[in-house]
Amino acid sequence: MAHCSIASRLITGFSWALSLTTATIVVATTQAFAQTAPGTRDLPARSVPVPDTVSPQMQKIIAAPLPATWNVIPDAADGWRAQVNESAAAVNQTLPALRAQLHVKVEPRAIDGVKTFEVAPEAIPTQNRNRLLIHVHGGCYVSFPGESGTSEAILMAGLGGFRVISVDYRMPPDAPYPAALDDAMTVWKAALKMSEPKNMAIFGTSAGGALTLSMVLRAKQDNLPLPGAIASGTPMSDLTGRGDSFVTNAMLDNVLVAYGANCDKRAALYTNGHDLKDPLLSPVYGDMHGFPPAILTTGTRDLLLSNTVRVHRKLREAGVEAVLQVFEGQSHAQYMRDVNAPETKDAFGEIARFLDKHLGK
Amino acid sequence: MAHCSIASRLITGFSWALSLTTATIVVATTQAFAQTAPGTRDLPARSVPVPDTVSPQMQKIIAAPLPATWNVIPDAADGWRAQVNESAAAVNQTLPALRAQLHVKVEPRAIDGVKTFEVAPEAIPTQNRNRLLIHVHGGCYVSFPGESGTSEAILMAGLGGFRVISVDYRMPPDAPYPAALDDAMTVWKAALKMSEPKNMAIFGTSAGGALTLSMVLRAKQDNLPLPGAIASGTPMSDLTGRGDSFVTNAMLDNVLVAYGANCDKRAALYTNGHDLKDPLLSPVYGDMHGFPPAILTTGTRDLLLSNTVRVHRKLREAGVEAVLQVFEGQSHAQYMRDVNAPETKDAFGEIARFLDKHLGK
Repeated sequence: MAHCSIASRLITGFSWALSLTTATIVVATTQAFAQTAPGTRDLPARSVPVPDTVSPQMQKIIAAPLPATWNVIPDAADGWRAQVNESAAAVNQTLPALRAQLHVKVEPRAIDGVKTFEVAPEAIPTQNRNRLLIHVHGGCYVSFPGESGTSEAILMAGLGGFRVISVDYRMPPDAPYPAALDDAMTVWKAALKMSEPKNMAIFGTSAGGALTLSMVLRAKQDNLPLPGAIASGTPMSDLTGRGDSFVTNAMLDNVLVAYGANCDKRAALYTNGHDLKDPLLSPVYGDMHGFPPAILTTGTRDLLLSNTVRVHRKLREAGVEAVLQVFEGQSHAQYMRDVNAPETKDAFGEIARFLDKHLGK
Repeated sequence: MAHCSIASRLITGFSWALSLTTATIVVATTQAFAQTAPGTRDLPARSVPVPDTVSPQMQKIIAAPLPATWNVIPDAADGWRAQVNESAAAVNQTLPALRAQLHVKVEPRAIDGVKTFEVAPEAIPTQNRNRLLIHVHGGCYVSFPGESGTSEAILMAGLGGFRVISVDYRMPPDAPYPAALDDAMTVWKAALKMSEPKNMAIFGTSAGGALTLSMVLRAKQDNLPLPGAIASGTPMSDLTGRGDSFVTNAMLDNVLVAYGANCDKRAALYTNGHDLKDPLLSPVYGDMHGFPPAILTTGTRDLLLSNTVRVHRKLREAGVEAVLQVFEGQSHAQYMRDVNAPETKDAFGEIARFLDKHLGK
């Protein structure tokens, strides 16, 4: 059913083997270190403890072992569907309690043929009555269909007091690029009839962080109005594998783990042979002049730390008001893992304040 | 003359040996990986290439080998003085060309008994005529005496167009804590007679980044007016060794290299037995309410990445307007290594714009 692939970027200059089925790592080499290329840094093996500089809740998240499927690659569409269904089912179990705790209601709603969810707090604060956020979920362009894609939208609605439309965009194996982006743009065009663009933001994390950026690039191309602000969490901004933290945080990040593993294989189902340097797939290569104010979020152990800070620099070089928040010890997107972690409230609180500052009312 | 000490934080759960005199690393273990504590991440050895996502100038800086003295620890004051003199002489050789290229003049000036340098661009832009910056240099509280401490001040004067007073504070082995802070505060009190506090900023990197924060804490304690803004570059904000990147970026950062090595031994000459958790020594433990707007700068490979982002979070939690910039692939303070690297202009350009936005005129 499934075969295992190793993340080839990691085996640079010396040999090691991953025993993937047990998710443990066995180093097969006894070689001494030698410089492999000018300037290459040869690092010894090491054990990295859980930092004591984060909350107990975050320590628990950071202490979690690598995901069992981080590098288990199905060889056919059915295998992918089984993985997707399993992770979606796990998330779905958590949603009723999350909605109840945050006093958030979620209703399915079709918008011009695209499936979405309306996600709203029971009481919307006065200053947010005329505001609307569009949410594009993460999951490496393949995971979290249906309701399972709404957890970040629930956090934003509950912690930020915003009305959110979460786009349940089409995904591979059935629908590769540009289906997801097309669906998101259909919703954006419909949203332009619901509210003023300056009163709206687009937000998302991981694949959703990249889609947030790609939606703005596409809106620029199509001469559509842009949102008043965006929030892009640890965006998959460069699918070509460039970015220093793909190497420096490899095996340290306990979410994505390594470049070329399961998440990137899912993204490859989406890109489906298209040029990975296309800015609509790797938005770090896009022209960011004229972008609305943006807030970016990442963590020090995030495999996409580099590709978040590279987007931040690109935005700033383009003269865009862009702020960056980096959380101690966190791997990819761990700021949305536990509603009870103070870091989650901190991250979403910052995003909500940023949106409140920049959106019209 | 000198003995070598290993950075004890690194040897966690498995054995390895550093051949320090040749600055190469030999791993003495053939052990397989085993979990050493709950949640500990066991990382294989790896080779990390120079990233292609930075400028050619920055690639050269990132490609540099570890400093020859990163863990060479003199056993007496004379040995420290010899190291300090050697690095100061190397910097001093570069200063005439730097001043000439940036059209910056440097003049020594004693202020209430404290040695300083006046550092100013030949032509001061109109909006900066009534502004004044106070600079506290880096060097782990022991290095870069005299003119060798002025390079960052020259960059700020030249790239930002600001008039700067750079404090040549007393240092160990002769003068431990609180001599440096006392000297910096003497200059701050004198500066309060030269300009409006809202027209002034304090800035510095590394030990200077920590002194910048400590000066504000001390000014609060002493009921002195605070500056209109501060710029703290990769501050040595926690001398106790807490901070995840002390472990995650160990041996990757080619400036500080590892916690407990030469730089921390220099800092220990400064702290001289005082409680390392004293906020005037480890300002991350300080109360940051009421701080002026702050800009923080670090890099993804910086050993002090964590201790920069921890300060950023603390400032934000205290309601302070604080922004963070993180540069791709850079180790500790490499944004000030080469005036011709675009990243240097980018970093100082951002700091200058931030100060321009927040300072009075």
